[in-house]
Amino acid sequence: MTNDSVRIGLCGLGTVASGVVAIYQGHSSLLSDRAATGIALTHIGARRDNPDCDTSAFTVSRDIFAVATDPQIDVVVELIGGTTVAKTLVETAIKNGKHVVTANKALLAEHGNSLIALAESKGVALRFEAAVAGGIPIIKTLRESLAGNRINSVAGIINGTGNFILTEMASANRTFDDVLAEAQALGYAEADPTFDIDGTDAAHKLIILASIAFGMPLNVTGPFTEGIDGIAPADLTFAAELGYRIKHLGIARRVGEKIDLRVHPTLVPSDKQIANVDGVLNAIMVSADAVGELVLVGPGAGSLPTASAVWGDVVDLCRELGRGQRCPIPALGVLQAALTDIERVSKGDVVSAWYLRLLASDKPGVMAEITRLLGSQGISIESLIQHPPEAGVEHVQIVILTDHAAGSRIEKALGEIEKLQAIGEHVVALRVESFGRELSGGY
Amino acid sequence: MTNDSVRIGLCGLGTVASGVVAIYQGHSSLLSDRAATGIALTHIGARRDNPDCDTSAFTVSRDIFAVATDPQIDVVVELIGGTTVAKTLVETAIKNGKHVVTANKALLAEHGNSLIALAESKGVALRFEAAVAGGIPIIKTLRESLAGNRINSVAGIINGTGNFILTEMASANRTFDDVLAEAQALGYAEADPTFDIDGTDAAHKLIILASIAFGMPLNVTGPFTEGIDGIAPADLTFAAELGYRIKHLGIARRVGEKIDLRVHPTLVPSDKQIANVDGVLNAIMVSADAVGELVLVGPGAGSLPTASAVWGDVVDLCRELGRGQRCPIPALGVLQAALTDIERVSKGDVVSAWYLRLLASDKPGVMAEITRLLGSQGISIESLIQHPPEAGVEHVQIVILTDHAAGSRIEKALGEIEKLQAIGEHVVALRVESFGRELSGGY
Repeated sequence: MTNDSVRIGLCGLGTVASGVVAIYQGHSSLLSDRAATGIALTHIGARRDNPDCDTSAFTVSRDIFAVATDPQIDVVVELIGGTTVAKTLVETAIKNGKHVVTANKALLAEHGNSLIALAESKGVALRFEAAVAGGIPIIKTLRESLAGNRINSVAGIINGTGNFILTEMASANRTFDDVLAEAQALGYAEADPTFDIDGTDAAHKLIILASIAFGMPLNVTGPFTEGIDGIAPADLTFAAELGYRIKHLGIARRVGEKIDLRVHPTLVPSDKQIANVDGVLNAIMVSADAVGELVLVGPGAGSLPTASAVWGDVVDLCRELGRGQRCPIPALGVLQAALTDIERVSKGDVVSAWYLRLLASDKPGVMAEITRLLGSQGISIESLIQHPPEAGVEHVQIVILTDHAAGSRIEKALGEIEKLQAIGEHVVALRVESFGRELSGGY
Repeated sequence: MTNDSVRIGLCGLGTVASGVVAIYQGHSSLLSDRAATGIALTHIGARRDNPDCDTSAFTVSRDIFAVATDPQIDVVVELIGGTTVAKTLVETAIKNGKHVVTANKALLAEHGNSLIALAESKGVALRFEAAVAGGIPIIKTLRESLAGNRINSVAGIINGTGNFILTEMASANRTFDDVLAEAQALGYAEADPTFDIDGTDAAHKLIILASIAFGMPLNVTGPFTEGIDGIAPADLTFAAELGYRIKHLGIARRVGEKIDLRVHPTLVPSDKQIANVDGVLNAIMVSADAVGELVLVGPGAGSLPTASAVWGDVVDLCRELGRGQRCPIPALGVLQAALTDIERVSKGDVVSAWYLRLLASDKPGVMAEITRLLGSQGISIESLIQHPPEAGVEHVQIVILTDHAAGSRIEKALGEIEKLQAIGEHVVALRVESFGRELSGGY
């Protein structure tokens, strides 16, 4: 460490942080060459040691706030997670004139606006490539590479745990509960996997992507979310029979003057790139008026891929700080004053094609009744599969793909269909998206 | 245009330039918001008008050098193409203190080192996202996002014309000449498509990618190249039968202490993402020690996608210039003094699996002879297809997939095989790459 090195402090010493340390220890001179300045990781704040990390070369504080207030530190990397202590920590760092790099999507989705306002007022940078889709450079792509584009939609697989579960269910015809238990054993899913399963984690990431793509403030109440726990192996099989795969997607899309934001299991045509992104991989499609469609695929989580994104941000900052410059790129691509909130499409107004799976008595007239109830809501049927009942089973499986219809109409039709005596159990209803190019720009 | 706007000059008014003008005319305030400064495209240099461009709002000079020397201009966008006038133009712009953005891969591959040296000495930036893979942000990803990684390989489809031709040949069982004629009619291929077909264009792009990925000077004599004009519809059919697709790939890979650089038609397993990137799309896979594998897919050419990349670079520069700062990121990711040339693997030493297609008389003993000649070079056979001769045809088609073998061994074996009386015509020999993860870092 030379006197004119940029000095980095690290808060947290968990999975991602140990990757950050490993990259520093392995690539110190490479990092400095790329930044064209010395980079010195000097101070780590962590409540306890991590046996995977040799921290003997660093100052280690048990009080993480000692890093945020250390006058020697230029950049604070926040990897403690959560939204309470982490918020105070990032605020403290910014107030002390530190630039901040974080992987904390929940913190950004919930408190990002106030943190960005604080950072702008202090003239420091807040960077978070690692917060969305792990090692995939989607934040930089939206914020910098596509600066000449009006972005029409951003959609993708942005939760690796959920994608692992759906992939395993589809390839081995296993149940949700069975695969979830394996994911937990493998360390892909948390002991409490609620946020991965119910879409909350993907919603946090989607909020960040949408803010940059559309120039909106972060708004945690934005997307509606549906989880993957209602998907049965039969749905994956029927989807395949119809030429689709089921992926848990986050979708942010312009619809007229509004923004459609949602996280839900989605049938995607099997020949789309994103339909074939399996396991813990993430993938993001961007549709924009000049570039057309980009697809980025890569590891959405994990220690080193996420740490790769952290170092990308840190080196960006060091390139400026080493020359005594400020980092000119605003957190969301434009200054906060240039952000404009945009009205959301309500859940009932979201239009898509639909996959419906229902159990019906194998009696004459049932299909006619179902068709009539859909028709009364203006919903037409694109295709239909009916499998003969298995021996001893009273009900047949009926799978319907509908034409495009608003969620509210589907809900009304299903309300009526579920009242039919011939219909058993709950009707499964999933959205279908084909992701045709939606070029709505002026070209 | 305000007094404190960053002023952009554009040289050339062809396909990409007209996209640059269209984006400016459509998104002037969006560009300024994102740069947090005024951006004013003011001066266009072009020998003739382009009917697709309304240039009435700009100063237009027939002498393109008037743009490069215009004291009002901060950033010169070079889109005239070629390597003679373009070289002088870029040199003139840099000597006049202008930052330069270019889409000219041939210029960079041939003269990049001297241009970068000049730019460094003058303290100006040279940016070229648009030079490789059109709208795909691969330059920024390698140069910035992956700054914490040791990059092990970069490989991909980086010529859209060639990919269009191979895709059409495969999907419709058409001949090379037939599809090339269509590509020319559609405007995907130049009147003289030599550089697209023989791999020169892809080699130029590969040189640029390899320089950033591995920290090497640009070296135009680097890659060996093989074109796609020797591919017959039969090869695409046999490849499919074996579970592969044929793609024209550029490959840059670390092999021990050397670098393996090559452009050639390649059999890729059908289940790899890159095998399913069709038509004029480009795709690039990056394998790096921290992030693992990233795949980026998007439009590799075309007016607006390429112009999107140009504006990404221009806005990056404006973000700095609008604050009176310099652009701190070196052209190839590190300063020229930190670049180190790395020895190349010679063509004969490149190891890969191989696809061989040969015509042989349908006589006993021929297969044994072929197997013996391969075996004498230490080449073992992974799988083999023999189709019965069609009525009236004396020869049978034999297709062999070999295990990994150096090019020199294959060449020797084929030299012997082609001497056999039972063998007709030239033996087709194509490399097979499976792109397993090659993590050679220290983790």
